[in-house]
Amino acid sequence: MVRMPAAALPYYSIGVDLGGTNLRIAAVGPEGDLREKIALETEVKEGRERVIDDMCAAIADLRQRMGEAPLAGIGIGVPGVINLSTGMVVNSPNLPGWSDFPVRDEIERRLQTRVMLENDANAAALGEKYLGAGKNVSGLCILTLGTGIGGGLVLDGRIWHGEDGMGAELGHMTIDPNGALCACGNLGCIEAYASASAIVRMANAAIRVGRSAGLTAAAEEVGELTAEMVYIKARQGDRVACEIFEMVGRSLGVAIGNLINIFNLPLYVVGGGVARAWDAFAPELMAEVEKRSVVYRARRPRIERSALDTDAGLLGAAWLPQLDRSRLQTAHNAL
Amino acid sequence: MVRMPAAALPYYSIGVDLGGTNLRIAAVGPEGDLREKIALETEVKEGRERVIDDMCAAIADLRQRMGEAPLAGIGIGVPGVINLSTGMVVNSPNLPGWSDFPVRDEIERRLQTRVMLENDANAAALGEKYLGAGKNVSGLCILTLGTGIGGGLVLDGRIWHGEDGMGAELGHMTIDPNGALCACGNLGCIEAYASASAIVRMANAAIRVGRSAGLTAAAEEVGELTAEMVYIKARQGDRVACEIFEMVGRSLGVAIGNLINIFNLPLYVVGGGVARAWDAFAPELMAEVEKRSVVYRARRPRIERSALDTDAGLLGAAWLPQLDRSRLQTAHNAL
Repeated sequence: MVRMPAAALPYYSIGVDLGGTNLRIAAVGPEGDLREKIALETEVKEGRERVIDDMCAAIADLRQRMGEAPLAGIGIGVPGVINLSTGMVVNSPNLPGWSDFPVRDEIERRLQTRVMLENDANAAALGEKYLGAGKNVSGLCILTLGTGIGGGLVLDGRIWHGEDGMGAELGHMTIDPNGALCACGNLGCIEAYASASAIVRMANAAIRVGRSAGLTAAAEEVGELTAEMVYIKARQGDRVACEIFEMVGRSLGVAIGNLINIFNLPLYVVGGGVARAWDAFAPELMAEVEKRSVVYRARRPRIERSALDTDAGLLGAAWLPQLDRSRLQTAHNAL
Repeated sequence: MVRMPAAALPYYSIGVDLGGTNLRIAAVGPEGDLREKIALETEVKEGRERVIDDMCAAIADLRQRMGEAPLAGIGIGVPGVINLSTGMVVNSPNLPGWSDFPVRDEIERRLQTRVMLENDANAAALGEKYLGAGKNVSGLCILTLGTGIGGGLVLDGRIWHGEDGMGAELGHMTIDPNGALCACGNLGCIEAYASASAIVRMANAAIRVGRSAGLTAAAEEVGELTAEMVYIKARQGDRVACEIFEMVGRSLGVAIGNLINIFNLPLYVVGGGVARAWDAFAPELMAEVEKRSVVYRARRPRIERSALDTDAGLLGAAWLPQLDRSRLQTAHNAL
């Protein structure tokens, strides 16, 4: 009887998006096709052990669902600075108690498989490059607009980590030296103009001075404004809400114009939850880049909304082991 | 009789710094040691043929002086965008009439040796990396402060060219969205605050409103102010001249703070003629970077004045063929 060796089945891999609020886990096939997905809450307050328990249980569940197919490995996207050689989280404000703990080794030990850590915005950049908007380009830059703003760079097909894994801190680019105060202590970071928190801050400021009856009514209705509600008001024609998104667009235009002059890449991607308001800020973004960037005017690179939406980081994390496998194979074939 | 093969003599290479005003040519040994140097004026007004004639004659002269030593090739630094595959200048405001002419092939034909073109600021980055301040690092970023501001990036030992050779246009990073008008048409580029022309512009503005008797007297003495004269006045304690260099430093601090957040490199170099005023602007530069860059505060990368001064581009151009030779050798040895 001829028995198919296990390796003849196509490899799949598992990605984890370990956010401060949501814990999402997905299984992805060798073409980047999403096979299974689990969404949990990250019980950050219950401590690191609890979160790792939950994560490992969900991964075991996914593996069972995938049956006999061989697993290439697990990629985990983490909102913080990663030390790639030790597999530890160096610094993550959203995951208190995770610093200087051997996350990668612990999960490898528990699950008996290969684990790779990556910064979440870097994982999103990788996701867009290999499975999203960037399939046909050699490199790209992504800004993920969430509560804060993350940045990721893929140069010549690889994530740019910088000397200490702190590369691509694009959210803290100064775009107005005397501008709004950012959480990092600087004045005028792009994060202080184009993140969900910045949108809420600008909306609340307008409410305080009585500039927008529409936003005031919306805030009274729900108690606390969200960026999504400001977007809904903009779609309904509220002038102040529209102006806020115009500011988001102009600010992104300054930042992306700088990035175009610095990198001369073929593609710049805007991702994260705020990117869903693309129609409200994109026209100002494009006009600003046109005005500001000499390289944009000469080469007209693509500037696009994320193709993978808020799954970019999850799919990118899942793709890490597959990419590594295909690179090892290429290196092996070249021997 | 045993005869030494010619290849046993150490290779040397020739670098050309083809500026809009000065044409400088140097021979460099295999350790990056400067052997011979020729300085001419670039007779731009006489046309391209004349400049190429002058350059080739000077190179022939240098080769004669170097005797029997074998030549690894010629590197030419050009103030403009280069198409590396065709060896043509795509765009160079300082060299009218040079676009879309096969510069590399023409000089190769005339001199019967290998010629490599490179953007002048990229060549300066390469010079600092291999022969200057960056000998012990894998990558660096340079800003060359001259009439304008050029930028160069060495990532993992190689020049970052971007998709079309337009990467590292660092001089046109917006550092103040409503700031001074730049030659590129944008408002608030770093070039409009920290170049020699920006220094002269700020000094003349102070003179026009009668703010500085010292600068006014200096301007009257010579007819036309230079950045160097403003620096001399600053050294003599002129308050307005000092303030101008403080503005240079703060502006560079915003730009370099952004670059540190983006790249997380170990070294940032300030070069070009204006870098000679380092003591007048460096304290403000450092204070501003400290305030602005979260990655600077975490990692404290080096920020230094160019070690090669205004020879960085010339030596970097000369190093191009040597670097290429050593890479070919490494690749060959690996076969």
